[in-house]
Amino acid sequence: MAKHAVLLLATGFEEIEATSVVDVLRRAGVEVTIAGLQAGAIQGAHGIKVLPDTTLGEIEPKKFDAVILPGGNPGYVNLGRDKRVLDAVKTAFELGKIVAAICAAPSVLAQAGILKGKRATIFPGMESALTGAKPLSERVVMDGNLVTSQGPGTALEFALTLVELLVGKQKAQEVKTGLVAKF
Amino acid sequence: MAKHAVLLLATGFEEIEATSVVDVLRRAGVEVTIAGLQAGAIQGAHGIKVLPDTTLGEIEPKKFDAVILPGGNPGYVNLGRDKRVLDAVKTAFELGKIVAAICAAPSVLAQAGILKGKRATIFPGMESALTGAKPLSERVVMDGNLVTSQGPGTALEFALTLVELLVGKQKAQEVKTGLVAKF
Repeated sequence: MAKHAVLLLATGFEEIEATSVVDVLRRAGVEVTIAGLQAGAIQGAHGIKVLPDTTLGEIEPKKFDAVILPGGNPGYVNLGRDKRVLDAVKTAFELGKIVAAICAAPSVLAQAGILKGKRATIFPGMESALTGAKPLSERVVMDGNLVTSQGPGTALEFALTLVELLVGKQKAQEVKTGLVAKF
Repeated sequence: MAKHAVLLLATGFEEIEATSVVDVLRRAGVEVTIAGLQAGAIQGAHGIKVLPDTTLGEIEPKKFDAVILPGGNPGYVNLGRDKRVLDAVKTAFELGKIVAAICAAPSVLAQAGILKGKRATIFPGMESALTGAKPLSERVVMDGNLVTSQGPGTALEFALTLVELLVGKQKAQEVKTGLVAKF
């Protein structure tokens, strides 16, 4: 059965990170829902406007196998200010679902209180925002069902790690080849 | 003075390629216009809907310093079927502007007749679509004002090459660092 992931989109999201995750997961056969924090088109940190599939108000985040947060400034600030996002992340974590964040967005996982004692990474220089976690300067860090990563340049590695977890290593390798990715 | 680039967006465009180029060029201070082949939101090859800044009918492509084509299937087919796209590419090339295409889209440059005797690359396996060119299996190929590249996994390298040409090596290095890119 196909796995389902939800990507939460706030104004100021990082465009490369958001599209890389959705594109790569869909290439792997994962059903991905892009949920905007509000209705209508959402503008990214570099002015690209994306029309989400639905809004956060219309979905039940806990029904997904993975909840994913892209970075971007002020995207991550807007994610962290929304109680529904913090609740979605916390509930998904408690239910053992995959919770993933990239760039500045791992700070939102810290705000949700789920990084205590966990290994995690974040955009270089922002380590102090990983309250309670063990910050690592690696491109992608997995700790149990938590996946964190550093920035637009690590987005494909981040996305392929999620494919590995949701679908398997073979599919991740197959998708990687189709992307002409090198790392 | 800021340089201006235009990215042409057709239904079925490759999302990682399109957003990587726009995002990276804007990080470098290049003014980028996303022009849809038709009005309204344009859906990518993996279902992501982007709202372009304008339409191809409303701009004069020859006024830009660079004309850029993302790949994606059927995006590249839709680009190649549109006489306005072929004309825009040909005119830009004749005026000495930068003409760039990634993934399957270098085939559109071949259709426009501007690859004769030129070094170029394309998505691996599609080399026969580079009619008249000298196909190379490199991740990014420059030949004069022509820049071609292979796929989503080479999109950051492609975009940073365009930054080098439009702004300079120092800015490209600076943007690369901010992306946490490795190559």
